[in-house]
Amino acid sequence: MSDRIGNYKDLVMSAEEAAQFVNHGDVVGISGFTGAGYPKALPTAIAEKAKAAHEKGEEFQIDLYSGASTAPDCDGVLAEANALRFRSPYNSDPILRNKANAGEILYQDIHLSHSGQQVEEGFNGDFQVAIIEVVRILEDGNIIPSSAVGNNLEYIEAADKIILEVNSWQSENLEGMHDIYRIEKLPNRQPIPITKVEDRIGETFIELPSEKVVAVVETNAPDRNAPFRAPDEVSEKIAQNFIHFLEGEVEAGRLEYDGFIMQSGVGNVPNAVMAGLLDSKFENIKAYTEVIQDGMLDLIDAGKMTVASATSFALSPEYADKMNENADRYKESIILRPQQISNHPEVIRRVGLISSNGMIEADIYGNINSTNVGGSRIMNGTGGSGDFTRNGYITTFVSPSVAKDGAISAIVPFASHIDHTEHDTMVIITEYGVADLRGLAPRERVERIIAVAHPEYRPMLQDYFDRAMQNKFVHTPHDLDTAFEFQRNFAEYGDMRGEQK
Amino acid sequence: MSDRIGNYKDLVMSAEEAAQFVNHGDVVGISGFTGAGYPKALPTAIAEKAKAAHEKGEEFQIDLYSGASTAPDCDGVLAEANALRFRSPYNSDPILRNKANAGEILYQDIHLSHSGQQVEEGFNGDFQVAIIEVVRILEDGNIIPSSAVGNNLEYIEAADKIILEVNSWQSENLEGMHDIYRIEKLPNRQPIPITKVEDRIGETFIELPSEKVVAVVETNAPDRNAPFRAPDEVSEKIAQNFIHFLEGEVEAGRLEYDGFIMQSGVGNVPNAVMAGLLDSKFENIKAYTEVIQDGMLDLIDAGKMTVASATSFALSPEYADKMNENADRYKESIILRPQQISNHPEVIRRVGLISSNGMIEADIYGNINSTNVGGSRIMNGTGGSGDFTRNGYITTFVSPSVAKDGAISAIVPFASHIDHTEHDTMVIITEYGVADLRGLAPRERVERIIAVAHPEYRPMLQDYFDRAMQNKFVHTPHDLDTAFEFQRNFAEYGDMRGEQK
Repeated sequence: MSDRIGNYKDLVMSAEEAAQFVNHGDVVGISGFTGAGYPKALPTAIAEKAKAAHEKGEEFQIDLYSGASTAPDCDGVLAEANALRFRSPYNSDPILRNKANAGEILYQDIHLSHSGQQVEEGFNGDFQVAIIEVVRILEDGNIIPSSAVGNNLEYIEAADKIILEVNSWQSENLEGMHDIYRIEKLPNRQPIPITKVEDRIGETFIELPSEKVVAVVETNAPDRNAPFRAPDEVSEKIAQNFIHFLEGEVEAGRLEYDGFIMQSGVGNVPNAVMAGLLDSKFENIKAYTEVIQDGMLDLIDAGKMTVASATSFALSPEYADKMNENADRYKESIILRPQQISNHPEVIRRVGLISSNGMIEADIYGNINSTNVGGSRIMNGTGGSGDFTRNGYITTFVSPSVAKDGAISAIVPFASHIDHTEHDTMVIITEYGVADLRGLAPRERVERIIAVAHPEYRPMLQDYFDRAMQNKFVHTPHDLDTAFEFQRNFAEYGDMRGEQK
Repeated sequence: MSDRIGNYKDLVMSAEEAAQFVNHGDVVGISGFTGAGYPKALPTAIAEKAKAAHEKGEEFQIDLYSGASTAPDCDGVLAEANALRFRSPYNSDPILRNKANAGEILYQDIHLSHSGQQVEEGFNGDFQVAIIEVVRILEDGNIIPSSAVGNNLEYIEAADKIILEVNSWQSENLEGMHDIYRIEKLPNRQPIPITKVEDRIGETFIELPSEKVVAVVETNAPDRNAPFRAPDEVSEKIAQNFIHFLEGEVEAGRLEYDGFIMQSGVGNVPNAVMAGLLDSKFENIKAYTEVIQDGMLDLIDAGKMTVASATSFALSPEYADKMNENADRYKESIILRPQQISNHPEVIRRVGLISSNGMIEADIYGNINSTNVGGSRIMNGTGGSGDFTRNGYITTFVSPSVAKDGAISAIVPFASHIDHTEHDTMVIITEYGVADLRGLAPRERVERIIAVAHPEYRPMLQDYFDRAMQNKFVHTPHDLDTAFEFQRNFAEYGDMRGEQK
């Protein structure tokens, strides 16, 4: 038996035994954010229990809440087993996604800063079970969370029963990296006392109501750590444009090379940006963001980044090993916070960061679709992009101008789903350049946005705008008859340009 | 000469003389928010100067920034004279609106909490002139703002030259009602030290860089104070539904009758809600909002409201007189703050308020159009609705189910412009009931939203949803071919139901 399980030794059992505490109709809150820190054993055990029930003709489905995305051995196995009725606040698992799009699972994606608060407010009803992965249970019964903090506090408080997974794959040296601050209940809270990215304001452990703990399960399994591809030409060009934009801000006196604060979505473009920052004039970079990525470890190792604050890791397998081997060193410059804090509008607006997130499509006025392809088909979810975009000092969206060999344009006449409004989007960056929309009326933005579209789509976009200018009202000129022509072409021909010979 | 003009007596001149300081191409920031506290004399003088220039074949246009909406004798005369190239961040004047929709004026509406900060950040370039209405200039040269604080601090700081309008119509007893707190520059600010609605954290005056003052103009003119109609049957039914919803929240343990904190948009429905609160069980109500309305004075007078915090007034003429006569008494329970503070996400999220705003249309998933009819035609602007909706404890949209004798439905298949996303909307209230969307996946919301649509539109909405469910992907089911059928009917036939015999 592991020496990580503190004084809960009597509660140690197998995942199959622990699954007895999860019943049909339960609302379950789990740890985990962007593939890190999710429970590794219980999901499979619950999925098996569901399959056994279904084989007997019995109902078995749960509602599942997490920090953010998990992994095939969590969302994947549960979705596959038809064990989920409802899922929130974020998912990136392909099986679950397909079932949501097929109408078989209900999925609500919401701003990640809102998700924990809404549970506390009781908007999601009662929670029966919380399943939390930990690095270690302390002798006093409190816990050290693992590679994500997420909504652990909220689910632990909301649930009647708590199941702990002690994962010995996670480095014990993560202890000390977390900063657990419990935000007060509404109304009339006190301010969150973070004024600089590096401020630590809480404890390094989570206090646990020990009377709720019903089971402890031992695991030894890695997080979902997806390898990043080496940056391709397009990603590198986008990254260059992004850094060139930052340099322009310095020239304009709106930014300094010293101490720039970044937020970054996950993926290959952000990693290319971080690789670009390695060779840039920027120094003492700080990150106030959701997830720690490979590029941030490189920036820390190179002495270019002084502190990174987030709620979880999203590392490649190689970098996850590096983290586990060097957690003791990284915790000097990395802070993992509850996602209510990492994504809180109060702190985001206060520190003054520059946000950078991906998108599915932007329309010619700057409305952004981050979630639903063709308006109906969910990809992942809005995640924290709204938290950072609404409250950032400068907010950018970065994307290749086309996908699927040119069949999909990232710039369209009318976004088929809108997650970020024209009031929020300041800058759109593709491999073709930077569309700086700040201080511009809707009509003024069109030329700049079309200029960063793929050349093949520019005439189609210009045609649309010319047609829209025939509208009797041209504040935000649209032609509603053809507004979704791009998306309708894609649905019919598999190509936004229309039928390809 | 008025005794309100402190030590600037040498600078007193007519508005026509003061207009010499405003030149073609200038960027001008003015006081004023929702028809209160805007300059009364300079706009007409600038409009005359523009007309004279135009008659001589010379160019004369300025860019105009305010707190929010002004009045016919400000936005109206300037738009009429073709004296405006660009306007931000809000407008409700019909002449300006028509020119924006005709493509003759560029208009950018943005979140009101962002507007001042973006000026400070330099996103809107250099400002040449600030024109600020004041109640009084103090002997030390500092000023007491009038019935709105708005973005006064930001424009005073940004501008090279300052013109003051001393309006003797405004009660001198407004002195002491303001709470002027200067938010720090980014990055790494301190917290805003408001933890309760009633907290005063600043000075009662605005410190003025006296070297910038170039003119003082005396006026004696009322704010634009539009009379409110007595609540009609529909408004009263909506108000009843709203209050019934609040009572349900109390029963569910999510709210208390004592000390509920409200935010409210402006108009007849909000005034009906406040009339309803007069007779309700709610006590010690507080308002953390943008504007003080008639209904709030009634609640204060009745001892039902203990404090109202805002950035301006939006009163009827009768209530404006009452305010001017009783400002000394009202300032015990009313606080006027800069709009960066009245609308700040940090404070809004911290106090835990229930927001209530109007809308043009909601779609069947809860996306809200607050601004552009038929996607193209601007009405007013998003204003502060996004500040409160994104950050409120519970967020509601209230609207009659139809407009124009039934020709326009407030519930549509797809909102033709989106100012608030499905991730932000919690509750939609019409005279037909309350659609509580909290914790629901998109498909689950449809039935509830259709249930509060006008009965005549429900079959059309259900038909759309049934058609949308034929989509291959049904996470957020849409049929993009017919998504804008309602708005296209309205454009073609003047009726969302289609051609009427």
